Amino acid sequence: MEFDLNGEHARYSYRLLAGLVTPRPIAWVTTIDEEGRVNAAPFSFFNVFGTRPPMLAFAPGNKTPEIPKDTARNIRRTGEFVVNLVDEACAEAMNLTAKELDHGESEVELAGLHTEPSRSVAPPRIAESPVSLECREWSTLEIGQNRLVIGLIDRIHAREGVVDPESLLVDREVFRPIGRMEVPAGYCRTGDHFVMPRPE
Amino acid sequence: MEFDLNGEHARYSYRLLAGLVTPRPIAWVTTIDEEGRVNAAPFSFFNVFGTRPPMLAFAPGNKTPEIPKDTARNIRRTGEFVVNLVDEACAEAMNLTAKELDHGESEVELAGLHTEPSRSVAPPRIAESPVSLECREWSTLEIGQNRLVIGLIDRIHAREGVVDPESLLVDREVFRPIGRMEVPAGYCRTGDHFVMPRPE
Repeated sequence: MEFDLNGEHARYSYRLLAGLVTPRPIAWVTTIDEEGRVNAAPFSFFNVFGTRPPMLAFAPGNKTPEIPKDTARNIRRTGEFVVNLVDEACAEAMNLTAKELDHGESEVELAGLHTEPSRSVAPPRIAESPVSLECREWSTLEIGQNRLVIGLIDRIHAREGVVDPESLLVDREVFRPIGRMEVPAGYCRTGDHFVMPRPE
Repeated sequence: MEFDLNGEHARYSYRLLAGLVTPRPIAWVTTIDEEGRVNAAPFSFFNVFGTRPPMLAFAPGNKTPEIPKDTARNIRRTGEFVVNLVDEACAEAMNLTAKELDHGESEVELAGLHTEPSRSVAPPRIAESPVSLECREWSTLEIGQNRLVIGLIDRIHAREGVVDPESLLVDREVFRPIGRMEVPAGYCRTGDHFVMPRPE
């Protein structure tokens, strides 16, 4: 089957691409608005993009073609954000923060979450998240109606046990992230694991 | 535990970030070199980044600080590439194409793979892959020693059964992509699936 995204299938681009490019890691992003309130929202058009310097990018999309989402607007204003990662235990709370709220309502309160201060940026991290990445905006690219936030990663906070203190390798028995799967509402656990050493 | 990526833990950035930001989708990228040979290589610093227009990005990294990988060089030269997605059945073949070969050797032959012509770009797709995305380079960003290839997606090829012809939703029983997990060699299957409808 073939789908022409510039022609007859253009209006199905989201359904097809978000359905097929899986599993996607989830960035649960905390930012601060003009009045100091904490905003939290999940995004799965997200990945790390390099380590020299340490960088990530995510695409928050827009509320409407002209209006960016609160997360994107807060980052443009403050230049700072925290990417919290999502494991099985905080999956439901993450999903609650995807709700569209009225301006001034708090996703953090709605989902019964707690925050902890960050070390190098103003937005706090989510206490219930096992891993948080403190980030500064490098740039936000607007390409057509897409919006790509590129961030430099300053600092990682990981819950005790997630990273081995000697090797600094991740313990997959302790850290059980979930992935975003097919449209509209699919996710996967990551416990069905295998190893393929890179060929010599 | 805290890790300062600008300080004492800078040299562990790859290990920490590639270990933690998981599960990652895999782009198995085909390109064409100066002599018309097909190059294939997998990259997991990859995701779709928007659908207006349909875009994706991946970070091929460099062979050395000054020398880009063959995939990145071919894309700069030709402006075209195909992102093939990776399911359980082609996981081992994908891994074989991660091997560093001498110039002129073919990963496609080494892995016993076959190609099919693309419709809108010169690089062929991998016949063994269930889904292929025909792409044109929008730009390649070089940020420090990182390299981010941003592509526009023209066309999707999906094996019969992967996408429902009526709804254009993906059939997760048929399409079983794998994800990249922790450093050095972890992967996950995506069959341990659950559904969380977005809150109203």
